[in-house]
Amino acid sequence: MKTLLAAKFVAATMLMSLLGPLHAQTAPLSIHEQGSFAVGGSVTSSAGTFDSLKPSPEGQTLHGDHAYVFYQVPENARRLPLVLWHGAGQSSKTWETTPDGREGYQNIFLRRGFSVYLIDQPRRGKAGRSTVPLALTASADEQQWFNQFRLGVWPNLFPGVQFSRDPQALDQYFRQMTPNTGPFDVEVVSDATVALFKKIGPGVLVTHSQAGGPGWVTAMKTSNVRAVVAYEPGSGFVFPQDELPAPMASSGGPLEAVGVPMAEFMKLTRIPIIVFYGDNIPEKPTANPAEDSWRVRLAMARLWRDAVNRRGGDVTFVHLPELGIRGNTHFPFSDLNSREIADLLSDFLKTKHLD
Amino acid sequence: MKTLLAAKFVAATMLMSLLGPLHAQTAPLSIHEQGSFAVGGSVTSSAGTFDSLKPSPEGQTLHGDHAYVFYQVPENARRLPLVLWHGAGQSSKTWETTPDGREGYQNIFLRRGFSVYLIDQPRRGKAGRSTVPLALTASADEQQWFNQFRLGVWPNLFPGVQFSRDPQALDQYFRQMTPNTGPFDVEVVSDATVALFKKIGPGVLVTHSQAGGPGWVTAMKTSNVRAVVAYEPGSGFVFPQDELPAPMASSGGPLEAVGVPMAEFMKLTRIPIIVFYGDNIPEKPTANPAEDSWRVRLAMARLWRDAVNRRGGDVTFVHLPELGIRGNTHFPFSDLNSREIADLLSDFLKTKHLD
Repeated sequence: MKTLLAAKFVAATMLMSLLGPLHAQTAPLSIHEQGSFAVGGSVTSSAGTFDSLKPSPEGQTLHGDHAYVFYQVPENARRLPLVLWHGAGQSSKTWETTPDGREGYQNIFLRRGFSVYLIDQPRRGKAGRSTVPLALTASADEQQWFNQFRLGVWPNLFPGVQFSRDPQALDQYFRQMTPNTGPFDVEVVSDATVALFKKIGPGVLVTHSQAGGPGWVTAMKTSNVRAVVAYEPGSGFVFPQDELPAPMASSGGPLEAVGVPMAEFMKLTRIPIIVFYGDNIPEKPTANPAEDSWRVRLAMARLWRDAVNRRGGDVTFVHLPELGIRGNTHFPFSDLNSREIADLLSDFLKTKHLD
Repeated sequence: MKTLLAAKFVAATMLMSLLGPLHAQTAPLSIHEQGSFAVGGSVTSSAGTFDSLKPSPEGQTLHGDHAYVFYQVPENARRLPLVLWHGAGQSSKTWETTPDGREGYQNIFLRRGFSVYLIDQPRRGKAGRSTVPLALTASADEQQWFNQFRLGVWPNLFPGVQFSRDPQALDQYFRQMTPNTGPFDVEVVSDATVALFKKIGPGVLVTHSQAGGPGWVTAMKTSNVRAVVAYEPGSGFVFPQDELPAPMASSGGPLEAVGVPMAEFMKLTRIPIIVFYGDNIPEKPTANPAEDSWRVRLAMARLWRDAVNRRGGDVTFVHLPELGIRGNTHFPFSDLNSREIADLLSDFLKTKHLD
């Protein structure tokens, strides 16, 4: 059944690729409404009384730990908006123009009639005000990200990888990274996203990588998350606390599951979920720590799918190479074949009556 | 002559306020193209050779100090785009939805047919990767900003101030602040904006506050800046280095002018410039350091206008209360009367044949 669905995805994809692009690239976007706001967050105060004539840290406040959201509502929008949540080291930029200059998910799904909400999670990007300090180090680390994001093994791209060979694309890719401005905190970031769903009502949550874990937490905290689409969730796989799988060792470090009460876990069985993983993930242990970290994530994600589906859940698990879709990196939604990847999402939303 | 222009502004404003809003608020935005990119910046490298199997800081790179830009081009766009550059503690959010939920300059000028480029300057917002480290302190400081941005004298708003009494507006206002992720550096931020103008061609540069100084530097570095619109420039007033005015003392600290070679200064005489200041700026010294800092800025800005215009320049200086427009804060473009303020800008662009 799941395989049949996958086969349908591929057929639909090929058809839409033939028919779609020319019109999609040239027609104007008709935007009914667009804007931005902060949502969620907290306020801290320092002791004392503020004196306007002799200002000091005394008696002052700090509003922080909110998310920043930029939204666009197209004319005649579909019922449910897409809420797009970036991964580690990224901001909402992830969903905008691709590193090689094509339209990202923001535009693609606006053109397909969806309202699109782009998050900068608390302590990232334009939501930079953190209630907790952090020292930024300006560390050179891009060769590690190149490997971790599975563009290749530095300095070589993987053969057939869905990433542009234009050096400008790699330059843009590195520059779309932006640091945490406070410690990463699953509760802080999920609370802000819950606040967003309370503000906007029901929608579909689309997560990437590091947002995968807090994405499950968000879906457990509010019933306004009507489906989750997770691209390459990398950590924070939640299991019933009495059925926690053992940590998985890899040359990139151990991967541990997260235990939650059964009643919370069961909430994940009540919504459709789809999980996507790209290519160049080894099935057997390897000495390359970046690649090996994905081996165990893929394995953990399969255990997680089984744990949810065994209890009546509806998790569709898509390992893209099994559909014959090859070369995808850790960023399938902005890879060279991103329209094909977007078509898989459209077909999922249609099949689940979410569009 | 300048006063006549100002009177025309007011008349045009009143007419547009009567005719404009209903249509402007409800018509869809027709966007020919939108997207984002990084521009400018540099690359640093750590010594050694990167080993994919045993990654360490050795032999890695860091792409940083670029600006992040989100742009929208409306259908049938006017010839020159507006490049909008935020002030201290702010990001491109400054130009989006106002704290009380109305459309900001981004939407207002899209509706008036201008392409709009919103900058996050290097080391701010979604351009967070800095090549220089910085320790973030998460300091409570909002009562100082409340005073410095001339909303009032904490905890009281100024009588008649153009800022919403809704507590949610103040909450949003505080949350649109976001910290530097590296040291503020005039050369770094102006170089990135110069790179932007090289990429997009001629345009009008709109600066706020801290961007005022680097805005003049940008206009001296590239002839693609065809006009500058500066809201409440707060520092970095450039003068011929042989004619530097003395530092101006205030209870908020001294304000010093910046000297540049005459040939550079003369470049500012070749483009139209308009400078806006709001209300509640004292003309005489006061013990309130926030207010007094604006007293000397206003005085320095007048000297600067005279220095440019004396050499054949075209600086229009607008102190809004002198036009009978009262209650504006440090953020006239997002104040309650922001459409009236936008109309002044539209009229300037029309008068100077920039639209």
